[in-house]
Amino acid sequence: MRVLGVDPGLTRCGVGVVDGSVGRPLTMVHVGVVRTPAELDVARRLVQLEQGLDAAIAEHRPDVVAVERVFSQNNVSTVMGTAQASAIAMVCAARRGIPVHLHTPSEVKAAVTGSGRADKAQVTAMVTRLLRLDTAPKPADAADALALAICHVWRGGAGDRLAAAVAKSRATGGAVRVVR
Amino acid sequence: MRVLGVDPGLTRCGVGVVDGSVGRPLTMVHVGVVRTPAELDVARRLVQLEQGLDAAIAEHRPDVVAVERVFSQNNVSTVMGTAQASAIAMVCAARRGIPVHLHTPSEVKAAVTGSGRADKAQVTAMVTRLLRLDTAPKPADAADALALAICHVWRGGAGDRLAAAVAKSRATGGAVRVVR
Repeated sequence: MRVLGVDPGLTRCGVGVVDGSVGRPLTMVHVGVVRTPAELDVARRLVQLEQGLDAAIAEHRPDVVAVERVFSQNNVSTVMGTAQASAIAMVCAARRGIPVHLHTPSEVKAAVTGSGRADKAQVTAMVTRLLRLDTAPKPADAADALALAICHVWRGGAGDRLAAAVAKSRATGGAVRVVR
Repeated sequence: MRVLGVDPGLTRCGVGVVDGSVGRPLTMVHVGVVRTPAELDVARRLVQLEQGLDAAIAEHRPDVVAVERVFSQNNVSTVMGTAQASAIAMVCAARRGIPVHLHTPSEVKAAVTGSGRADKAQVTAMVTRLLRLDTAPKPADAADALALAICHVWRGGAGDRLAAAVAKSRATGGAVRVVR
């Protein structure tokens, strides 16, 4: 399964693509950041973000796009830009028929480090180790995007298989059996 | 000047198109609501919203798109959907090279009713009167979208003319003169 993770943001939007499945080594396919200039108005920044994300999706053709779920309790000064950037990420994927899954920051941290309260340094260290990289991905937004993709390979993948098994069971009348 | 106003929302997104200029009667060109089903996931709702807004912009070819400015102090349960819907509206316009202007709810109320604290009924009543409509536009999202468009004809229009006059003055070395 190939997952493209998006850490949404207007100034820096992290993009990370990971190939993997549960129980097998993960492979980093791509990591990068889409930046938009703060001096442009929001509408034109969103268009630039759309172009950058759409190019990444077109190039890497992910099976799933995983986006960080934005909460309104977050930093008030940036939450609007984050919500707007996440909308662009979702629409770029869904327009191409690619499933979109949202994961909360604590789900991502828990999946990658074992603790939902891990700090950025722990997340970056685990991402670097899990993907067997020589150097830590920078900036933090890029590492977070890879963490989102890894989280989805492990968590979302199981959910997708469960849903597929339930659907198959209903179709055939058999019992549900999920192979992990 | 033709302005397409957008009252952003995921469940109901108001769209209103008004032709007008300062000091002349206003004309309603279009009013409507783009609805997306709550049972779809957010990504697919945003794609449907994009299709609806893009069709309205393509049909009515506005000179400006005016979008309500979303604040994070608003209702927490709906603010994320509103912010995401506003991002789609902005990107649909900016992608076509159409200028996007944001107006706060109190700017819109003040422009249309004279009071930044007017209630929905007052706004709807004034929109109905200013556009010389036989019946009030419904639902409230549709009336709000028309109010946004009217607000931009009156407020944004002056700002646009001022900017144009300043630019022209700089180019010619003459004095700035704004005709209202």
